[in-house]
Amino acid sequence: MFKLLQIDQKSHARRGELTTNHGVIQTPIFMPVGTQGTVKAMAPAELREVGAQIILGNTYHLFVRPGMEVIKRFGGLHRFMNWDGPILTDSGGFQVFSLAKLRKITEDGVHFQNHLDGAPCFLGPREAMEIQATLGSDIAMLFDECPPFPCEYEQAKESLERTLRWAIRCREVETPGLKFGIVQGSSYEDLRRHSAESLVAMGFDGYAVGGVSVGEPESEMFRAVEMSVPFLPHEKPRYAMGLGTPPQLVEMVARGIDLFDCVLPTRLARNGTAYTTQGTINLKNATFTFDQCPIEEGCTCVACQGFSRGYLRHLVKSEEILGLRLITQHNLHFYLNLMAQIRQSIEEERFPEFRKAFVERYKKSPETEESGN
Amino acid sequence: MFKLLQIDQKSHARRGELTTNHGVIQTPIFMPVGTQGTVKAMAPAELREVGAQIILGNTYHLFVRPGMEVIKRFGGLHRFMNWDGPILTDSGGFQVFSLAKLRKITEDGVHFQNHLDGAPCFLGPREAMEIQATLGSDIAMLFDECPPFPCEYEQAKESLERTLRWAIRCREVETPGLKFGIVQGSSYEDLRRHSAESLVAMGFDGYAVGGVSVGEPESEMFRAVEMSVPFLPHEKPRYAMGLGTPPQLVEMVARGIDLFDCVLPTRLARNGTAYTTQGTINLKNATFTFDQCPIEEGCTCVACQGFSRGYLRHLVKSEEILGLRLITQHNLHFYLNLMAQIRQSIEEERFPEFRKAFVERYKKSPETEESGN
Repeated sequence: MFKLLQIDQKSHARRGELTTNHGVIQTPIFMPVGTQGTVKAMAPAELREVGAQIILGNTYHLFVRPGMEVIKRFGGLHRFMNWDGPILTDSGGFQVFSLAKLRKITEDGVHFQNHLDGAPCFLGPREAMEIQATLGSDIAMLFDECPPFPCEYEQAKESLERTLRWAIRCREVETPGLKFGIVQGSSYEDLRRHSAESLVAMGFDGYAVGGVSVGEPESEMFRAVEMSVPFLPHEKPRYAMGLGTPPQLVEMVARGIDLFDCVLPTRLARNGTAYTTQGTINLKNATFTFDQCPIEEGCTCVACQGFSRGYLRHLVKSEEILGLRLITQHNLHFYLNLMAQIRQSIEEERFPEFRKAFVERYKKSPETEESGN
Repeated sequence: MFKLLQIDQKSHARRGELTTNHGVIQTPIFMPVGTQGTVKAMAPAELREVGAQIILGNTYHLFVRPGMEVIKRFGGLHRFMNWDGPILTDSGGFQVFSLAKLRKITEDGVHFQNHLDGAPCFLGPREAMEIQATLGSDIAMLFDECPPFPCEYEQAKESLERTLRWAIRCREVETPGLKFGIVQGSSYEDLRRHSAESLVAMGFDGYAVGGVSVGEPESEMFRAVEMSVPFLPHEKPRYAMGLGTPPQLVEMVARGIDLFDCVLPTRLARNGTAYTTQGTINLKNATFTFDQCPIEEGCTCVACQGFSRGYLRHLVKSEEILGLRLITQHNLHFYLNLMAQIRQSIEEERFPEFRKAFVERYKKSPETEESGN
């Protein structure tokens, strides 16, 4: 299912190929986030256009609305949203802990009130996997508890042990696609190792590093990955959940990560923020009023091929939908093009040079709009 | 500039061809409204896709934001918004009277505070035409006063006389494209006739019927057109401003109108309302929850080719942008396809049959979402 094509000699960067029920994915890859059965503001054809190979769907959101009766009737998420490429679904755990109200955690799962109408709901390992099976997910994530940052050792340990017990139950539920385990353990080396080794012993199709991008400093984020990756098998894909900025992605690839997802490119776009190789720019800024250049010179995305910063600024200021559409398209193109460049640089054995040049250039940016996920 | 190709034998329906600086327009035609330099939610390429031949821009809105300094720097509206087809601009008169605050009308024009920041502004016949010249409009509309409905005879007469004096001044200002006069006169036969005859005597490239779709009953709307058209020359295009529902458009074509604009298809789309040949449906309705059919069976638009009513309902309920994008695209396709069918039926000498069938079928609709413009 995962074919490791090449490993960088001077880092842990990997070039791979992941086969799923809905197609083959070239890694490293970034997965645009389609929370509610749509990548915000984008049509499926546009996702293809920007180079998306796989998108993410959120179990929690789709479970709450439209609900599984609807998804069942439509024969799964792919048909419902008219996307025939691969879909990875999260387990809903993260959202239950961040969005839902009045949670009560038991050994069987989590009782909560959903964020829409407060209706009482329940999600446990079995339910989460069954929902992902109904969605027809190509990569289903195990139901886990994602502790906040910072987290006391005892709490992190207790949470991790429960997550590992849940992993056994998740494993039993049949799903149509691949199943990825999630390494937790907060910022504790022994817990991260224990988590990774336990999951690997159970045997999954891939492994994610969870509990990152939850408000920790960047150094802790890197540490979490560095503490987990050494205990994951080479021959399985690795996914760092919910991150990050473009340089963070490059750095994570260097640490051996293959898959990424993040709301930054789509969320920041809706605020008028666009990515460039020198950092982000906010198109609401008055300096762009008369600017006839595209967001980034040389960019081949639809937005940069036809529209100026000045026009985009006008659209954003006027709250016109086309503005956030075009910036979203540019930002996703930027992220996916970055991954394509990373893949090519690994193939051509010049990833270390690419990494250095990209990160240095990006850091020169006068603006630091990113806020993590 | 306008070539009358064919006239229906049993009605006043006309098939024509209007040549502008940015291309030839096949009439009768509907013009999507691009108020703030963008047809809401649509990209230029999508406008082409749905069959748009000409779009409308609003002088008042563009004058207020981004302002003429920006438009000048970009070399006009076409380049600014990346639309290389024809653009008709209104004169701003209607918006000054409906949107702006604290108006004071003088012989020279209207003093007002704009609706965005309350800044004092002035628009008169000269200014309105100069702005339209700056926009690079292919069809510029004369600056007029659009009286409300109902309107006392004396007030309508006084307003009309001023509008006619303004017409003389508008005529003097050089603009790069065509210039259309606007017939006013409220619901008074003699005023409508006087208005039409006076404008025709001055000689313009086309004539619009204004003061319609301002809250009057449908019968009055038809009457206003019926009282104006007989005094307009056959060899010039005719434009009914700001309307209407699909059957109203068909009826207006039967009364000799060639050009239409209306915010209904785009505005209703953002509320979840979609057009079908049997009337409108509101996709928020729970009856569509499990509906796997497209908005309209047989429709060739992007929305109907790939997406179900059930999915669109989910998007609308979830306030996802893709929902209103797809419904907007469908609705504009519906309007423009209706015009294409009208043109074809005139060419094939079966417009009366088409008119009867369309209006009857549409009227069968259980829903009456339309609210006029």
